[in-house]
Amino acid sequence: MDDLWVASVTDSINTIYLLFSAYLVFVMQLGFAMLCAGSVRAKNAMNIMLTNVVDAAVGSLSYYLFGFAFAFGDGSNSNPFIGVRFFALKDIPSSTYDYNFFLYQWAFAIAVAGITSGSIAERTQFSAYLIFSFFLTGFVYPIVAHWVWSSSGWLSPSSSSLLFGSGAIDFAGSGVVHLVGAIAGLWGAAIEGPRVGRFDAFGKPVPIKGHNATLVVLGTFLLWFGWFGFNPGSFTTILVAYPDTTDQGHWTSVGRTAVTTTLAGSTAGIVTLFGRRLLIGHWDALDVCNGVLGGFVAITSGCAVVEPWAAVVCGFVAAWVLIGLNIVALKLQYDDPLEAAQLHGGCGAWGLIFTGLFAKEEFIVEAYDSGVRGIVRPYGLFLGGGWSLLGAQVVELLAVVGWVSVTMGPLFYALDKLRLLRISVDEEVAGLDISSHGGYAYNAHPDYSPREETGPRFYSDYVRLQDNS
Amino acid sequence: MDDLWVASVTDSINTIYLLFSAYLVFVMQLGFAMLCAGSVRAKNAMNIMLTNVVDAAVGSLSYYLFGFAFAFGDGSNSNPFIGVRFFALKDIPSSTYDYNFFLYQWAFAIAVAGITSGSIAERTQFSAYLIFSFFLTGFVYPIVAHWVWSSSGWLSPSSSSLLFGSGAIDFAGSGVVHLVGAIAGLWGAAIEGPRVGRFDAFGKPVPIKGHNATLVVLGTFLLWFGWFGFNPGSFTTILVAYPDTTDQGHWTSVGRTAVTTTLAGSTAGIVTLFGRRLLIGHWDALDVCNGVLGGFVAITSGCAVVEPWAAVVCGFVAAWVLIGLNIVALKLQYDDPLEAAQLHGGCGAWGLIFTGLFAKEEFIVEAYDSGVRGIVRPYGLFLGGGWSLLGAQVVELLAVVGWVSVTMGPLFYALDKLRLLRISVDEEVAGLDISSHGGYAYNAHPDYSPREETGPRFYSDYVRLQDNS
Amino acid sequence: MDDLWVASVTDSINTIYLLFSAYLVFVMQLGFAMLCAGSVRAKNAMNIMLTNVVDAAVGSLSYYLFGFAFAFGDGSNSNPFIGVRFFALKDIPSSTYDYNFFLYQWAFAIAVAGITSGSIAERTQFSAYLIFSFFLTGFVYPIVAHWVWSSSGWLSPSSSSLLFGSGAIDFAGSGVVHLVGAIAGLWGAAIEGPRVGRFDAFGKPVPIKGHNATLVVLGTFLLWFGWFGFNPGSFTTILVAYPDTTDQGHWTSVGRTAVTTTLAGSTAGIVTLFGRRLLIGHWDALDVCNGVLGGFVAITSGCAVVEPWAAVVCGFVAAWVLIGLNIVALKLQYDDPLEAAQLHGGCGAWGLIFTGLFAKEEFIVEAYDSGVRGIVRPYGLFLGGGWSLLGAQVVELLAVVGWVSVTMGPLFYALDKLRLLRISVDEEVAGLDISSHGGYAYNAHPDYSPREETGPRFYSDYVRLQDNS
Repeated sequence: MDDLWVASVTDSINTIYLLFSAYLVFVMQLGFAMLCAGSVRAKNAMNIMLTNVVDAAVGSLSYYLFGFAFAFGDGSNSNPFIGVRFFALKDIPSSTYDYNFFLYQWAFAIAVAGITSGSIAERTQFSAYLIFSFFLTGFVYPIVAHWVWSSSGWLSPSSSSLLFGSGAIDFAGSGVVHLVGAIAGLWGAAIEGPRVGRFDAFGKPVPIKGHNATLVVLGTFLLWFGWFGFNPGSFTTILVAYPDTTDQGHWTSVGRTAVTTTLAGSTAGIVTLFGRRLLIGHWDALDVCNGVLGGFVAITSGCAVVEPWAAVVCGFVAAWVLIGLNIVALKLQYDDPLEAAQLHGGCGAWGLIFTGLFAKEEFIVEAYDSGVRGIVRPYGLFLGGGWSLLGAQVVELLAVVGWVSVTMGPLFYALDKLRLLRISVDEEVAGLDISSHGGYAYNAHPDYSPREETGPRFYSDYVRLQDNS
Repeated sequence: MDDLWVASVTDSINTIYLLFSAYLVFVMQLGFAMLCAGSVRAKNAMNIMLTNVVDAAVGSLSYYLFGFAFAFGDGSNSNPFIGVRFFALKDIPSSTYDYNFFLYQWAFAIAVAGITSGSIAERTQFSAYLIFSFFLTGFVYPIVAHWVWSSSGWLSPSSSSLLFGSGAIDFAGSGVVHLVGAIAGLWGAAIEGPRVGRFDAFGKPVPIKGHNATLVVLGTFLLWFGWFGFNPGSFTTILVAYPDTTDQGHWTSVGRTAVTTTLAGSTAGIVTLFGRRLLIGHWDALDVCNGVLGGFVAITSGCAVVEPWAAVVCGFVAAWVLIGLNIVALKLQYDDPLEAAQLHGGCGAWGLIFTGLFAKEEFIVEAYDSGVRGIVRPYGLFLGGGWSLLGAQVVELLAVVGWVSVTMGPLFYALDKLRLLRISVDEEVAGLDISSHGGYAYNAHPDYSPREETGPRFYSDYVRLQDNS
Repeated sequence: MDDLWVASVTDSINTIYLLFSAYLVFVMQLGFAMLCAGSVRAKNAMNIMLTNVVDAAVGSLSYYLFGFAFAFGDGSNSNPFIGVRFFALKDIPSSTYDYNFFLYQWAFAIAVAGITSGSIAERTQFSAYLIFSFFLTGFVYPIVAHWVWSSSGWLSPSSSSLLFGSGAIDFAGSGVVHLVGAIAGLWGAAIEGPRVGRFDAFGKPVPIKGHNATLVVLGTFLLWFGWFGFNPGSFTTILVAYPDTTDQGHWTSVGRTAVTTTLAGSTAGIVTLFGRRLLIGHWDALDVCNGVLGGFVAITSGCAVVEPWAAVVCGFVAAWVLIGLNIVALKLQYDDPLEAAQLHGGCGAWGLIFTGLFAKEEFIVEAYDSGVRGIVRPYGLFLGGGWSLLGAQVVELLAVVGWVSVTMGPLFYALDKLRLLRISVDEEVAGLDISSHGGYAYNAHPDYSPREETGPRFYSDYVRLQDNS
C-alpha cells in the first residue's frame, strides 16, 4: 500500500511534468507556422501555414501507427537500428512507457517536417509536401530517434554496449531533430533550386523579404516558450534524487537546463544583433530572432550536461556559425527562405560538437545514470574528458547526414524527375495561395459592393487590395 | 502528521495539475478571439474581438457571483436541477471544492458565449451581445453543467440515482459546452437572418471570406493547445491510483485523453482536407482548421473513456458531419460566419452519440469510480455494453437542445422584436467597427501629414488605405 | 531515506510549479511585444518589437551576471540595500535557491524594461534603448527587488527587523516591477517630450492610433495568461501546509490568488468599458484591454492577501485611476504611446495603497509565515489592522519613486544632453523602421516584377503599398 502510494506520487508528478512539457513542445508547431508565414511573401502565406497544420495532423496518424514503434519499440527481438513493437499504441501503457511519453515524442516528431518545409517554401507542390512529410515523420526521423534515444540504439548513451564506451549525447536533439530536418530541407532546396528572382542574371542575390515581421517575432517568442518544454522536458522524469548530493535531483538539472537554454539563445541573439550591425549597418530584428533560434538549436544537444557559462560560449559560436553559413549560402546561390539548413543544420552540427567539448562528467552521470556513485564516463574534451565523447558526437553527425541523404535525397530527386516537386514559374509568380489553395490569406472586403456603399467609395481600391494582398 | 503530509502532497499535485489546465483552457478564449477575428471581414474585426474580451470579463463576474453556485452549489437542500450555494465564493474552499476548481470551471464558462458570438458575428448590436452573454454564461450554461457534472445532477454519471442506471457521459462537454453554445448561436443566427450579400437574389450563396487566414491558423493552434487543458484536465485530479492495475491511475487516463484528443482532431483535419479537396478542387487551409476543431469538439464527450483507435473513428465521422452540415446550411440559406452551429452543434451532437457507441467499460469505471473492483456499468453499444448509455446520451442531447431553445430562443426573439438585436443595413455595410467602436482595427499611418513627408509621398493612398482597411 | 524521499517529492512539486510559472511569466514578454507593436504606427512596429526581443536577450545576460546577485545575493555580509553573492550563478544551487528560482526571477526582470519601452516608443534611438535597458534590468530594478523581496531587505515583510513591525507587502510587484518600469518611462517620456503631431499648435491632443488592434488584443490575452504565472507563481513554493486548517496550504492560496487576479482584471475591464462609453460615446475594445491590464497591475501587490470581493473593489478603483490619469496626461501634454506610466504607475501605486487597506491578517500569516499559529501582524486599515502596514506601503511607494527618479532621471537627462536619446524629426516622420532597422515590418510583394505578372497587374499599387505599409 505504501509502495503503491510512492509509485502513484512518482507517476503523477512525472506525468504532470512530461505532459505539460509536451504541450509546450506542441506550441512550437504554432511558432513554426507563424515564423514561416511571416518570412514568406503574402502570396504564399496560406500554403506554408497549411503545411504546418498538416504536419501536425498527418504526423499524429503516422507517428501513432508506426513512427513511435520504429523509434521506441524495444522488445525481446529489438535491434540497434529500428524498433519493432507498439504499433498503433498496442501494449501501451507498458512497464516502461505510459501515454504521456508517446505524446511527448509525438510533439517532437511533428516538428521535424516543419523545419524542412521552411527550406523548400514558396515553390513546392503541396502533394510533394504530403509525400515527403509522411515519409520523414513516419520513417526517416524515427529511425534516428531509435539510434540515439532508444535504450537499444547503437548511438545511445544508455545502451548496454556504448559506442566508444561513451555513446553520443544528443540530449534533446540538435542532431536527432534539427539536423535531420535541415539535411532533408537542404536536399529539397538544392534540387529545386532558388526561387524565381532570388538571384539575378549575374548571380547577385536579390533580397526577398517576408511579408510580416510581426509574425516572425511572434513565432520566435512562441518557439522560445516551446523550447522550455523541448529541452528541460527531455529528462522525461523529474522525481529522481541524486544520491551523492543533498537536496538535488533531476529537478535541479531540469531547472539548470532551462537556464542553459535561455543563456545560449540570448547570447546568440545579442551576438547576431551586433555582428550583423557591423556587417549590414542597421539593427535588424529578424536577425536577432534567427540568432536566438540558432542559439537554441545549438544548445539543444548539450543543454543538460553543461554549465551555464558554457552555454554562453555555445551561443556565441552559434551566432557566427549562422552568420557565416548565410554568407556561404549566398555565394553558392543556395536559396532557403527560412535559412533552415543554415540555422537548424549548421547550429545543430555545432551543438553536437560543442557537447563533445564542454560536457561535464558529473552532469552526464546525473542525466543518464541518475547520479549513481562511482560511474565513470567520457566527457568533454576541453574539460579533460578525452576524445571518446567527441568521437561519438562526430559519428552521430556523420550518421545523421548520411542516413537522411540516402533516404530523402533520392526521394526529392525522384519527385523532381516525375515533375511532382516544383510548381511552374507561372504559379510561383502568381503565388501558391491563388494557384493551389483557392485564394489569398488576406482579403480586404472581398464582398464589397459599391452600390451599398455608405462611407467613402473607392471600389477600385478594394478590388486592387484584394487582388494584390 | 503523516496523514497531513499525504493530504498535502495530494492537494499540491492536484492543484498544479488543475490550475495549469485552467490556464490552458483560458488560452482558448484567445484562440477563439483570433479565429473569429480572422474569419470575419476587416471592418468587423474590432467588434468580434471586443466580444471575446468582454466574454472573459463579464463572465468572470457573473460566474463568480452566481454561475458557479448554480452549477456546483450542492448542499443539504440541493436538487437535480440547480445548485444553491457558493454564491460569490461563499464557503469556498469547502470540503469538496478549492479555488482551483472554481478557476477551472470559470475558464469553461467563458468559452460558451464565445461559440455563440461566432454564429451571430458581423450583424449584431453590441448591447444585445452584453445581454445574452450575461444570461448565457450566468444562467443557461450553469444549469446544464449542474445536470451533467454536479454529483446531484439528474443526468450525472456520478449521482446516487443514475438515469437508466448509467447517467450521461459527457466528460469534458461536447454537449454541456459546445452544443449549448451552438444551439444558442443557431437561434440567434436564424432569427437575425444572413448577412447582407451572403445570398444573392436567387438564393445562391456568395462567399464572404474572412480577412486574415493567418489569424485563423493562429486561433486554431491556440485552441488545440488549450484543448489539452480542456479534455485531459477534466479529470480535475490526477493522483488517483487504480487498484486493479499495477502502476496505473488517473495519470494514465489523463495521458490517454490527451492522445485520443490529438488523434480525433488530426483525423478529422486530414479527412476534411481530402474530402473538401474532392468537393472544391483545391487544398484549403481553413477547411483543415475547421476539421481539426470539429474532431476536437466530437471527442470532447468521450475522450476519457475510449481507446485511441476509437478516437480515429470519431474524428473520421466528425469530418463528414461538418462537411455535410455545411452543405445543408447553404441549402437552407443559414448564415453562420464561423460555422459555429455546424461545428460545435453538429460535431458536439455526434460526440455524445459516439460515446454511447464506443465507450469502454474499464475506462468508465476508472474515470468515474476510480477503477474500484467489481463495479458494473453500461457502456458503448458497439462494444456490447447495451442501450442504457446510448439512451442517456440521447436524453442529454435532447435536454440540451430543448433547454437552450426555450431559454435563448425567446430571448433572441424578444431582442429582435425590440429592435435591439440586429444592426441596420447601413451600419452592416459600413462595418461594426466604424459604426459602434470608433474606428477600424487597422490603421495605416492615420496621423500622416504630407507636409512632413520625407520619403515617398502618396498621401492619397494613406487616406484610402485608412478608409478602406 | 524516507526523509530523502520527502525532500525529493517536495522539491519536484515545487520545481514543476515554479518552472512552469516562470514559463508563463516569460509569455508576458511576447504579450508586451504584441501589445506594443499593435499600439504604435506601422512604421515603428519593427523597432518596438526589436526592443522587446532585446530586453529578453540582454536581460538574460545582465541578470545572470549580476542582476540576480544584487537582488537575492544574501550572504554572511549581506545588507538591507544590495545583495553581494551569486554573481554568474556561482554557488547556485545553494541551500535556499535552486535554478528554478533564478529562472522565475529572470522572467520578472526582463519585464521591467518592456514597460519603460512603451512610454518612450516611436521616438527613441535604439542605442539609448540598449543603454537604459541594461542599466535598468541589471541594477535599478534588482536593488528594489532586494529591498522588498530579499529576506535581508529593509522593506521586506520577511526580514528579522520589520519596518513599522510590518514590512511592505508587495507580493508579486505592483511596486517592485510595475511602478519601477513606469517611473523610468515617465522620466524618459517627459524628457523626450511628445511625438511629432501628438498635440497641435494650440496644445489640443491629436489622436495617434496604433496600427493593429488585433495585436493589442492578442497581447492583452497573452499578458492575462502570463499573469497566472506572475501572481500565483510568486508563492515560489506550493507544497506548504497550514497547521491551523484542515486540508489547506499554499495550494489553496495559490488558487485564490489566481481568482483574485482574474476578478480584479475583469472588473477593471468592465468598468473601463462602461466608463469610457459614457465619456467617448462608443464601445472601445482597446479601452477594455487597458482596463483589464490596469486591474492586473493593481491587484499584483495584494493578490495573495485579500479576499475575492476585495479584488473586485481593487479593480473598480483601478479603472477610474486609469481613466483619470489619462485625462490628466492629456491636460499636461504628456505623451505615452502605451499609457504605460498611467497604467503601470498609477494602478501600481493604487495597488500598494489598496493592500494597506484591504489585506487580511490570516492570509498575510499564511503567505509569509506558512500560517504558523499565534503570529500577529499588522494588516489592512479598513479591516481593523491599523496604520502600520499602510505606512510601510506608502514608504515603499515613495522609496521606489525616489530611487528610480534619482537613477533613471539623470541617465535620461544625460542621454538627452548628449543627443543620444531622441531621433530627429525627419527620422520620426519617416518612422524608425526605415531609418534604423533597414525596412518596414510589412511588405506587400517587394520582389514583384510586372513583367512576370500573370494575374492582375497593378504594379504601381504594389510599390505604393510597400512604401506605405
